[in-house]
Amino acid sequence: MGEKKRVAVLGATGAVGQEFVQTLEGHPWFEVTQIAASERSAGKKYLDAIRGAGGTIGWEVGGEVPEYAREMVVRSIEQVEAGELDLVFSAIESGAARDVEARFAAQVPVISTSSAHRYDEDVPILIPGVNDGHADLLDAQRANRGWKGWVAPLPNCTTTGLAITLKPLHERYGVRKVLMTSMQAISGAGRSPGVPATSITDNIIPYIANEEKKVRVETRKILGRLEGGRIREADVRVSATCTRVPVIDGHTESVSVETEGEADPREAGRLFDEANASASVAGLPSAPEKYYAFHTDPTRPQPRLEREVGGGMTTTVGRMEREELFANGLKYVLFSHNKKMGSGKGAVLLAEMLLRKGKI
Amino acid sequence: MGEKKRVAVLGATGAVGQEFVQTLEGHPWFEVTQIAASERSAGKKYLDAIRGAGGTIGWEVGGEVPEYAREMVVRSIEQVEAGELDLVFSAIESGAARDVEARFAAQVPVISTSSAHRYDEDVPILIPGVNDGHADLLDAQRANRGWKGWVAPLPNCTTTGLAITLKPLHERYGVRKVLMTSMQAISGAGRSPGVPATSITDNIIPYIANEEKKVRVETRKILGRLEGGRIREADVRVSATCTRVPVIDGHTESVSVETEGEADPREAGRLFDEANASASVAGLPSAPEKYYAFHTDPTRPQPRLEREVGGGMTTTVGRMEREELFANGLKYVLFSHNKKMGSGKGAVLLAEMLLRKGKI
Amino acid sequence: MGEKKRVAVLGATGAVGQEFVQTLEGHPWFEVTQIAASERSAGKKYLDAIRGAGGTIGWEVGGEVPEYAREMVVRSIEQVEAGELDLVFSAIESGAARDVEARFAAQVPVISTSSAHRYDEDVPILIPGVNDGHADLLDAQRANRGWKGWVAPLPNCTTTGLAITLKPLHERYGVRKVLMTSMQAISGAGRSPGVPATSITDNIIPYIANEEKKVRVETRKILGRLEGGRIREADVRVSATCTRVPVIDGHTESVSVETEGEADPREAGRLFDEANASASVAGLPSAPEKYYAFHTDPTRPQPRLEREVGGGMTTTVGRMEREELFANGLKYVLFSHNKKMGSGKGAVLLAEMLLRKGKI
Amino acid sequence: MGEKKRVAVLGATGAVGQEFVQTLEGHPWFEVTQIAASERSAGKKYLDAIRGAGGTIGWEVGGEVPEYAREMVVRSIEQVEAGELDLVFSAIESGAARDVEARFAAQVPVISTSSAHRYDEDVPILIPGVNDGHADLLDAQRANRGWKGWVAPLPNCTTTGLAITLKPLHERYGVRKVLMTSMQAISGAGRSPGVPATSITDNIIPYIANEEKKVRVETRKILGRLEGGRIREADVRVSATCTRVPVIDGHTESVSVETEGEADPREAGRLFDEANASASVAGLPSAPEKYYAFHTDPTRPQPRLEREVGGGMTTTVGRMEREELFANGLKYVLFSHNKKMGSGKGAVLLAEMLLRKGKI
Repeated sequence: MGEKKRVAVLGATGAVGQEFVQTLEGHPWFEVTQIAASERSAGKKYLDAIRGAGGTIGWEVGGEVPEYAREMVVRSIEQVEAGELDLVFSAIESGAARDVEARFAAQVPVISTSSAHRYDEDVPILIPGVNDGHADLLDAQRANRGWKGWVAPLPNCTTTGLAITLKPLHERYGVRKVLMTSMQAISGAGRSPGVPATSITDNIIPYIANEEKKVRVETRKILGRLEGGRIREADVRVSATCTRVPVIDGHTESVSVETEGEADPREAGRLFDEANASASVAGLPSAPEKYYAFHTDPTRPQPRLEREVGGGMTTTVGRMEREELFANGLKYVLFSHNKKMGSGKGAVLLAEMLLRKGKI
Repeated sequence: MGEKKRVAVLGATGAVGQEFVQTLEGHPWFEVTQIAASERSAGKKYLDAIRGAGGTIGWEVGGEVPEYAREMVVRSIEQVEAGELDLVFSAIESGAARDVEARFAAQVPVISTSSAHRYDEDVPILIPGVNDGHADLLDAQRANRGWKGWVAPLPNCTTTGLAITLKPLHERYGVRKVLMTSMQAISGAGRSPGVPATSITDNIIPYIANEEKKVRVETRKILGRLEGGRIREADVRVSATCTRVPVIDGHTESVSVETEGEADPREAGRLFDEANASASVAGLPSAPEKYYAFHTDPTRPQPRLEREVGGGMTTTVGRMEREELFANGLKYVLFSHNKKMGSGKGAVLLAEMLLRKGKI
Repeated sequence: MGEKKRVAVLGATGAVGQEFVQTLEGHPWFEVTQIAASERSAGKKYLDAIRGAGGTIGWEVGGEVPEYAREMVVRSIEQVEAGELDLVFSAIESGAARDVEARFAAQVPVISTSSAHRYDEDVPILIPGVNDGHADLLDAQRANRGWKGWVAPLPNCTTTGLAITLKPLHERYGVRKVLMTSMQAISGAGRSPGVPATSITDNIIPYIANEEKKVRVETRKILGRLEGGRIREADVRVSATCTRVPVIDGHTESVSVETEGEADPREAGRLFDEANASASVAGLPSAPEKYYAFHTDPTRPQPRLEREVGGGMTTTVGRMEREELFANGLKYVLFSHNKKMGSGKGAVLLAEMLLRKGKI
Repeated sequence: MGEKKRVAVLGATGAVGQEFVQTLEGHPWFEVTQIAASERSAGKKYLDAIRGAGGTIGWEVGGEVPEYAREMVVRSIEQVEAGELDLVFSAIESGAARDVEARFAAQVPVISTSSAHRYDEDVPILIPGVNDGHADLLDAQRANRGWKGWVAPLPNCTTTGLAITLKPLHERYGVRKVLMTSMQAISGAGRSPGVPATSITDNIIPYIANEEKKVRVETRKILGRLEGGRIREADVRVSATCTRVPVIDGHTESVSVETEGEADPREAGRLFDEANASASVAGLPSAPEKYYAFHTDPTRPQPRLEREVGGGMTTTVGRMEREELFANGLKYVLFSHNKKMGSGKGAVLLAEMLLRKGKI
């Protein structure tokens, strides 16, 4: 690969930013040369900048703060020097992200976990292993906007697992309808303040603002086709009910689909095994050994058991059965790690894919 | 009401049995004159019989063990004198229940929380307020079997909330399809041993053996019509995915329905309010003030907030919206207390309804 | 009692303020005539002012928002008219409380849950049933400061249970040393933001800033004697380790004490029963039937079982044994409800006691 | 090391047995050649023998069932051929363990996690890194009993962390008194049935049968000296209060100690660092890089953060302060992984130490 690419992490002190900092430790292709966060953190060493108020966990992504980052001085967003970067990972919250990311993208590629640009026409929502081909839209975007770089956003973490599991089914059978109920982890709501423990312990909150619409819109775009310089949305109708449950990490989703072709639950299981064999992400540093884990044991997936599989990058499918209420129906339960494949580590995998494709 | 009816509680030491013992404290119509459990408990005072091994909660239904029960001597099932009873509440586990309950029913009415007789043709599955009219099948059952009594089983606790919420929709619009994902409380699995804490803390178990089939079959029967001495199942197709989540009490269910008539989410909400006004259970001692609680606040229902409403006998409905994937579709989230309306206290409400109807 | 006293609740939208609003519903002696909160809430109806962001519980103290409060317009602190009040309940956070409470106390009595004035020499830390006599210091305070009213703060909620359980032991044996480890509920940290669920689920945080010092200082003051117009601290050495555990409501404390007189665990148990018989709070509207619940069952106290006892106002003691490491040693485990006796409802009990004493 | 030692795991299907099976996967010195469990499992393949009832986790120690064990046929205890073994790991429950372990020890060394033999005079309670020298008592035991092998039990998992942290303090200052409150993980109670989720969710159980006495007796023995062929107990008085909290893995203990020599909290911290440098377990395959992790951050130790450190074999110490209530007092909070260092993996570390010493 020659020299490592120089990358910055924006929003490095938050939950997603910490995932970036951790994932990029010792990365073979990328080197973090600048980290940035809000004005309040600017000028502090990273270790001091993440320190929480008494009793809260300052470094919340497990293990220790990577050696390389501990003493790095956090910059304000304004202090980041884009000219000395090959890539920006942005974990900025969606409100501020639109402007900040556009500003950087004018000079350098930006991979983002925010929703700010997701719904723009010339912006693909990329999941490595699902719609790698949509990456070509980045060239159009660059041209359109007169930028040197581009913005490539990840989907919402609830969309991620859904789109990944729909992909082989869609290719084989043609998915027409998707009815999904999610049971989402508390870590999906971030950390400051995130979900108060008094609200979710021994409880379920049956609503996550805007989440259901995001899942609907993003799934259609991700499963769509890039034609004539724009993405033609897949003709898939999606209905989602999103709930929060007292699980720390990892989203579980109960999914029913209607397909155009005749679908068989046993064959559907084999599709995931076959998809593993041909996964486009093979060989990328952050890719799991198996893109999909498929279980016939009806008690799987379980968040505590699946969370660590493939370093959090494997998507698990179980309980594959016929859905009697739909024509050619299938139903299943999926697990996807919202903090890994659905967030920082997934963004790094995307960067790897784009680098291999020559986009970075 | 004249003299109180003399009742026995079978299986009085288990989780459901304790609900019976608690609910019947100071009941205006019923007096517990005999309690029975397994051989191991027979001859002990109730207080000693429920004592758990070190560290576990012996009395697990809240508050203190009722005064009336503390010193009662627990009988073996064989020692129960049916001749001195007007009614039996059975919380016996399903394996043993079939024979034991039939033996008692030969002499005296039996209300049961087990599934043993639920699927027999001459046995109604009764939910007060939903299908009171099916109670007439008890007379046929008595005649058929040459019994003096009958067996009236409650539905599975996951069916209860579903059938209750479907009822007004079915009457008004004609429900055709029901697709449901449940998030069930750990108390639904009982207590000895129940779900181990190491299995469910910070976890979801996406499977509960036999549960989905029970929901399917029971819903059709409960919503059916009693015609010509038998129940004609409702023409409703039900698909359920049942999961266990780390919530102590109360089942949450995400429901999508297809209806025959054109359904409107706003009107649907009003239906529940109207159903409250005409609820058949009004005036029964264990009936809640409101049979349904309907919320427009999208963050409801939440188990911690709904659990105590109406003494655990109110069923909560929220998030009523159009279900785009179904013809005339509606979707909503319900909460039903599996230990109260869905179990012992619901059985007492059923007894009250049947007594008022003159069946006891 | 004649007419009801007119009271205001300051900080009415927060967790403690909500406890006040709930506890004062239908109170026989007090009527809430004004409620106040931050500028952000001023001018809104109470129901709107407490509404949380998507997914969080706006009204978090159980049941429904009291009818009387729903439509009341929240005032800013500046808009409160002290001249039309007989008493102020303050749930203002400690930073702002010092000035605001002093300003009100110049005109009207103030009962506060904040720590702002606790450590002033002319301010008693009152627990009804423990040190009612210290209330006379309020007269001195009023004179000292030239106020028409006074400030009477509650202790920290972790001190409350400790001081309450030490009281009968101290009177009988003379407590000299107290070594305590607490296991505190998450609700003790408030709600906005409180403890993030990602921090405390399946975890323990072994540190609560400033808590241990508060327990040490406050316990000595509460158990002290009022002599010559000032409180002489009790000669009790206190060492505390305060931890946060994944329990929603109610603090558990493991306590070892050294006493001057010879202490016997069995007699110690009886002391709590005797103390119940002579409890000074008897007859007050918010007082529990039993001030203490004493258990010989070694599996008590348990937060889930004790939480509702006496409406959250009963303090539970169990596991009373000899502490071999101390001279005349005793050890026990206590439970105290941090949101009830240790906070808003405890403050209302204090108001009742002070009203009966003629201080209000 | 030459050829690998042939080992058997007794009780291989239970929670502790699973830890053995997992830890011994690919072990450089030991090879599992026989596995045994109850009659009910005998004759089944291991994978089938551990399968739980619907919905419970059959393999509960994380990751996947090791390849080597999946197809091994489980023997009954009677079918184990001791003549073909160099070592036995016993995870048999304490009731049955006394006889079974003695029977095996007549022929081959036995390392046990049960308490059956712990309190015999010629049986050391060994913790590698703490009292390795006590291993010489195994020779006396073998001679006494006329056995070819011996029994070497681990301490109770709550004793383990306490004794490990006391060790450097005892050597340097002479520990005289230890007052401890534990907050123990639910996994410490095993799995079948273990602690029911309905009992411990949102709760604390302040009592664990026999635990406190075990901690008292075992700590004195472990810190004692082997003199004249027997262990002279350390002159340390121990008082423990043991509680169960809703934490999955890892025990937390709040400890206060009185020492003979003058102890300084800052120096005490350094002692742990020094002890790391000279740890006797260095170089053993299961030993962690650091035997102790010492933190000055007051929010440590936290179970979620410490659990994985050193593969669960590192003991964490934090909150080191002066204990004012004791002469030369110190207080601290420790974390020890009950399933790793305190159980199966700790037993393997013990085997490694004994092998290196030539005892196996």
